[in-house]
Amino acid sequence: MNSPKISTKPPSGMRDFLPAELARRNHVIAIVREVYGRHGFLPLETPTIENLSTLLGKYGEEGDQLLYRLLERRDALKTALEKIGPPSDAWRTPQLAQAALAEEGLRYDLTVPLARVVAQYELPKFFKRYQIQPVWRADRPGKGRFREFYQCDVDITGTRSLIAEAEVCAAVCEVLHALGFQGFKLRINHRQLLRSMMHAAGIDLAHEAAALIAVDKLDKIGDGGVREELAARGIPGDSANRLMELILFAEADAIFGIPLTRGPQGPRAGLAAIRKHIADPAGLQALTELEQLVGLLEASPAGPHVQLSLDLARGLGYYTGAIFEIAVPDLAGSLGGGGRYDDLVGMFGKKQVPAVGFSIGLERILVVMEERGMFPALSVGPELLLCWMGVAPEKVIAVAHQLRAQGLRVEVFPEEAKLGKQLQYADAPGVKAPLAAILGETELAAGEITLKHLGSGEQTRVAIADAGGAARVLLKGGHV
Amino acid sequence: MNSPKISTKPPSGMRDFLPAELARRNHVIAIVREVYGRHGFLPLETPTIENLSTLLGKYGEEGDQLLYRLLERRDALKTALEKIGPPSDAWRTPQLAQAALAEEGLRYDLTVPLARVVAQYELPKFFKRYQIQPVWRADRPGKGRFREFYQCDVDITGTRSLIAEAEVCAAVCEVLHALGFQGFKLRINHRQLLRSMMHAAGIDLAHEAAALIAVDKLDKIGDGGVREELAARGIPGDSANRLMELILFAEADAIFGIPLTRGPQGPRAGLAAIRKHIADPAGLQALTELEQLVGLLEASPAGPHVQLSLDLARGLGYYTGAIFEIAVPDLAGSLGGGGRYDDLVGMFGKKQVPAVGFSIGLERILVVMEERGMFPALSVGPELLLCWMGVAPEKVIAVAHQLRAQGLRVEVFPEEAKLGKQLQYADAPGVKAPLAAILGETELAAGEITLKHLGSGEQTRVAIADAGGAARVLLKGGHV
Repeated sequence: MNSPKISTKPPSGMRDFLPAELARRNHVIAIVREVYGRHGFLPLETPTIENLSTLLGKYGEEGDQLLYRLLERRDALKTALEKIGPPSDAWRTPQLAQAALAEEGLRYDLTVPLARVVAQYELPKFFKRYQIQPVWRADRPGKGRFREFYQCDVDITGTRSLIAEAEVCAAVCEVLHALGFQGFKLRINHRQLLRSMMHAAGIDLAHEAAALIAVDKLDKIGDGGVREELAARGIPGDSANRLMELILFAEADAIFGIPLTRGPQGPRAGLAAIRKHIADPAGLQALTELEQLVGLLEASPAGPHVQLSLDLARGLGYYTGAIFEIAVPDLAGSLGGGGRYDDLVGMFGKKQVPAVGFSIGLERILVVMEERGMFPALSVGPELLLCWMGVAPEKVIAVAHQLRAQGLRVEVFPEEAKLGKQLQYADAPGVKAPLAAILGETELAAGEITLKHLGSGEQTRVAIADAGGAARVLLKGGHV
Repeated sequence: MNSPKISTKPPSGMRDFLPAELARRNHVIAIVREVYGRHGFLPLETPTIENLSTLLGKYGEEGDQLLYRLLERRDALKTALEKIGPPSDAWRTPQLAQAALAEEGLRYDLTVPLARVVAQYELPKFFKRYQIQPVWRADRPGKGRFREFYQCDVDITGTRSLIAEAEVCAAVCEVLHALGFQGFKLRINHRQLLRSMMHAAGIDLAHEAAALIAVDKLDKIGDGGVREELAARGIPGDSANRLMELILFAEADAIFGIPLTRGPQGPRAGLAAIRKHIADPAGLQALTELEQLVGLLEASPAGPHVQLSLDLARGLGYYTGAIFEIAVPDLAGSLGGGGRYDDLVGMFGKKQVPAVGFSIGLERILVVMEERGMFPALSVGPELLLCWMGVAPEKVIAVAHQLRAQGLRVEVFPEEAKLGKQLQYADAPGVKAPLAAILGETELAAGEITLKHLGSGEQTRVAIADAGGAARVLLKGGHV
């Protein structure tokens, strides 16, 4: 059964989380949970595996391509292979084979599963849920881009009230505050306003999606870049110019790196400026919604962060109303985003349920926090390594449990070895126990133990029954 | 894009966890983490997706069959389809197709990924890790049997010391204590002792695996059943009788439902009894190890639960030494199991690292705890629903955040509605907020809020700034 040279690395785009890294992940997740809970959101989890019928057609063509699909098994695989039909080369295209050989896939985001859950169960009318789980996308892996990554979502279903938008935005801003983020921006826009601006610029319906994608890149490729891309996508120059004028004139966007040159700042001023150029009722309604939303956000902890960003488009997903994104200074891309999606639950054909949500990406938060030294000292490992010499292993086990019963995180050196070697191990990489406890014959006979702070060298002999309290003093750097 | 009649159920064997159920799962997981941490174990997580080369050949033939495999994508899929070769019916067997069409699969347990991690990284010599993650097995789903389920594992790598066996067993018993389990048994046995007993009974090497499987069923099918199965597997009647005599005579097994009829009880007595029948050095060594292990366990919180179970075999996996299992009265099957596996890390061809571990199954623990009413009251939802009338939504948002800043879990009724309807919603299934806060014009003008305990009807008007404290008194059933 020996198989030399099996790779022991995780597959491409996958990661192992060793204890120190996992401690940082768990630290962030615990804060996210606490803050979302305080904002009245309930936890939900959905399965890793979903039917492809649930997933396909929800994420655009590129999304469908990036889905992980599970190969059919046993009889189902046999049937699929037979169904592929008379042997010929025609069916041998990935598309046809994919369709025949898989009918389940891996969760691609947390929003579509939520929509399925809302369609399936009797839930509270206003279902406020948070969900923190991994998703899988077979994207080309790159720096900071993984194929398995965690999303932390909050959503509210069942209401068209803008209070729901304000609540998800405030919850996300409060998470970021709790994690120590300060100068971030909550960029807001509205899908219908984007559509109306394009209409006002004379861009026809057929070019809308293409224009959306180009505009969405403003923060990456700049004004000139967007104009080039609009031209490349076949949008007439004067329409492109008009659209860029609307977006830039409104002074709405002040995202990092794009200087503001004209007009008064602030989202209200931007909305007032753009209103003059919008005539269609849907666009005006979108403006009114954004104005109301700004008012609600200003009453919440999200207030200082709000920024109208008329170039924000949020890809081609399922959004129907207000859209949001979190931008952090000196970081390309966003920490998360969201928006209103009133039609997604209805796509399951059971009931129409409006919804709004916000998703933040755990990996990006971790990268920024790490780079900027935002983590507190996190203690993961044992607080104490129990070292022993000349006593029976049974006694060692018994003492270890006496110490654990006093609440200490205790590791036992598992083998007979010289004391120096054991103490050295306490300080080894990946162990780093701040304290050692030494149990020898004399200590045992007296019902005592020697506690040693490995950093300060401070040491003391105490009754085993009192070791918990003494250890805590030493851990805090005190003298005993 | 409307697709009527997409199923909104999760796929077969998969589950959605709605908030109340998830609260129970998270309650158990939090306790498992705390106890494992106190026993000096560090957290580890490995990716959902592993290379099939990592997984195949580790779980026996049945395991290989139950692996979830991921269909190759794009070019790799094309290549795979081309590789399948000239169209013919010969390759159209699930086995060949599987091998050609997939090279990644889903995590099947937590032990093989740990072995890969230990082979891959520079870790502490004695790596004590816990891991709580889902695994996937394409088994036939049934009552209490799912295709995605969580395991909670503790393992120690890098030592052959029996202290490691004692530590993992004690940690698991302490988890069960902390969850409220009492009358469970920690069944122990040894792979080498089983082999030696078979040898002593005259069962030849070729029948060993078959005999192991039959014996492992003693608690399910009883003495007679095992004898029948041994016969069916071609083991001569006198060898079968001799084996059963060894197992039963040793008086070792007292698992629930199998009465003890002879001899003194207790694992030491059982070991002494069986020692008389074992002559080969490996078997004697196994007995010595079990005797030492019993001594160590008796010095730990696992002590009262230890039971020698000579019929325990733990399937056909990777075990090489002592093996363990947790049995609970009136529950078929086990809550978890484990053992020593000194050859698994070496299978990756990099280094030999001995290891021992114990895995408990979250789903079975939850089923038992639910059936036996072992859960405390868990509060998941908002503590307070903020109801409002005649005030601007901005004011509502501002007050909600003032209450949250005081630490309360607050949901806001998101729409304008009659107060009665709002209060009714606070008590709706899935919401069940114990408190309502009422914000009307008069309250707002006075900077106050009305708090109402929905169970007792107790209500009071307090300054918004003091609402946190007052709410906490009401939540505890007190008067304000």
